[in-house]
Amino acid sequence: MLGIETVAGYLPKNRVSNYDMKEKFGIDDDFIENKIGVRHRALKKSTCRSSDLCVKAFEKLQEQHSVELSEIECCIVITQNPDHNLPHTAAIVHGKLDLPVTCAAFDISLGCSGYVYGLANILSFMQFNGMKKGLLFTSDPYSDIIDPNDKNTALLFGDGATVTLIGENPLLTAMDFSFGTNGKEYESLVCKENLFMDGRAVFSFTATTAPKHIKALLAKNSLSDNDITKYYLHQGSRYIVDTIRKRLKVAEEKVPFDIAEYGNTISSSIPMILAKELPTLPKGHYILSAFGVGLSWASAIITKLK
Amino acid sequence: MLGIETVAGYLPKNRVSNYDMKEKFGIDDDFIENKIGVRHRALKKSTCRSSDLCVKAFEKLQEQHSVELSEIECCIVITQNPDHNLPHTAAIVHGKLDLPVTCAAFDISLGCSGYVYGLANILSFMQFNGMKKGLLFTSDPYSDIIDPNDKNTALLFGDGATVTLIGENPLLTAMDFSFGTNGKEYESLVCKENLFMDGRAVFSFTATTAPKHIKALLAKNSLSDNDITKYYLHQGSRYIVDTIRKRLKVAEEKVPFDIAEYGNTISSSIPMILAKELPTLPKGHYILSAFGVGLSWASAIITKLK
Repeated sequence: MLGIETVAGYLPKNRVSNYDMKEKFGIDDDFIENKIGVRHRALKKSTCRSSDLCVKAFEKLQEQHSVELSEIECCIVITQNPDHNLPHTAAIVHGKLDLPVTCAAFDISLGCSGYVYGLANILSFMQFNGMKKGLLFTSDPYSDIIDPNDKNTALLFGDGATVTLIGENPLLTAMDFSFGTNGKEYESLVCKENLFMDGRAVFSFTATTAPKHIKALLAKNSLSDNDITKYYLHQGSRYIVDTIRKRLKVAEEKVPFDIAEYGNTISSSIPMILAKELPTLPKGHYILSAFGVGLSWASAIITKLK
Repeated sequence: MLGIETVAGYLPKNRVSNYDMKEKFGIDDDFIENKIGVRHRALKKSTCRSSDLCVKAFEKLQEQHSVELSEIECCIVITQNPDHNLPHTAAIVHGKLDLPVTCAAFDISLGCSGYVYGLANILSFMQFNGMKKGLLFTSDPYSDIIDPNDKNTALLFGDGATVTLIGENPLLTAMDFSFGTNGKEYESLVCKENLFMDGRAVFSFTATTAPKHIKALLAKNSLSDNDITKYYLHQGSRYIVDTIRKRLKVAEEKVPFDIAEYGNTISSSIPMILAKELPTLPKGHYILSAFGVGLSWASAIITKLK
């Protein structure tokens, strides 16, 4: 059965401090630490593109897991900031990694909900086509589209990328997925020239939608909070993660918040934590749940087998 | 079993004549009719976006087939010219069509190979997630990115969009798919500011790769040309379609060329012909094969059941 063999994440070393922005935006330590929860943001070099971040993530993967490039049959990149609109970034990554010509490659355009969707996508596509080894990348460098004078977005997002190795000897398998879309509200989070976010609207949508979505997925699978070891929520901000957790009535230690030192990395936010925690996770069921651009949301139950 | 219930295509009414370009580009009727094979190109209004073309295609679908919007569980748009880079165009289409909030929606970034990939994608994603009704859109309006003074691209491409209804009462089912990528050659067909195409390199790649790819897929499925009723090739130009056909040693009437009056519509080129021909197609096996941006290629064997 196909599943996640391992996950690796890359964060650029360069950090920008939100403490240096206190005067500019009229914010205080409490706002930085408890509201958004982002102290420092990872920032790539301006010449570093989405595909470069993917390659860096792959190098991290290779440090911890041997990967035979000639065995890769599928390469998917989740991004809304591709190197160019055409070709797809997955083709550029394919070239840079020297993947086989028989490898399928395409991008999926999704934002914060992208990893959960992408996981369903690569597992289904590979299973359907009899493929045994694949790479799922997330890479969405928002520093390219953020207006540094926009308080709603300039303090939140960090650059980074992840890669998930899919194969037949998995640590994690997927039990069930659920998806949702409210396209009528897409103007709440959109990039025409720069990124625009109506923070209040996105917060309100997420705080209402995410807990219900997770509860419904658990109920559909006859599971309760007692069956769930941890909840990996999209790391939108400390306040949204805390709010969802409280509405779910779940213990704090079951809901990691990890982005204080690098920021919200969009579709990379969940796999970035998985990359850290996967080696020491106990057997059990885990929730992934993500929400954002679209508006779009997706949740999954995944199971650690060994 | 999931498959294609119906296909509909939309072409803007406005046409630009390549005969009016003879002096500008130093070309003659033979070049227009026999080399590129495009006499007129469909051209959308500049204010019409990818999502608008999708909605127009959906209106065509509704003219021929009743669709219960509340039943749609999946909405995928194949495009490399989204309305905005974020959100995904599928979310905007979702909003404009008033699709259910439980509907999954995402874009796939692929060019000319996009329909064949997209078909594998929506079938696998829906099957994996137990979905019964979905919409696969193709919409890639190249008029937005073409330099009207570039002879290599200005005469070839037309605007258009298609939608394929996927469901459990199909006319066509998929027997097998095969994919390929050569990311190292991506610079042959790229859009940095405007579309750039190294026509010779793309032609040479396609003329070499496509016939081999189709033959290998037939062999893998123990089929020969005798088992194939028609070959729906990506309509890159008359010359490339003719070249592939000759290299396959296939009768001319089995390989439609249809774009003389509207141009190469990228990922819409195959479903645009399917939309025309599907109602009268006899039972049997059909080849779909497409190639282009990436470089990327994909072939499929599909079967008309009734």
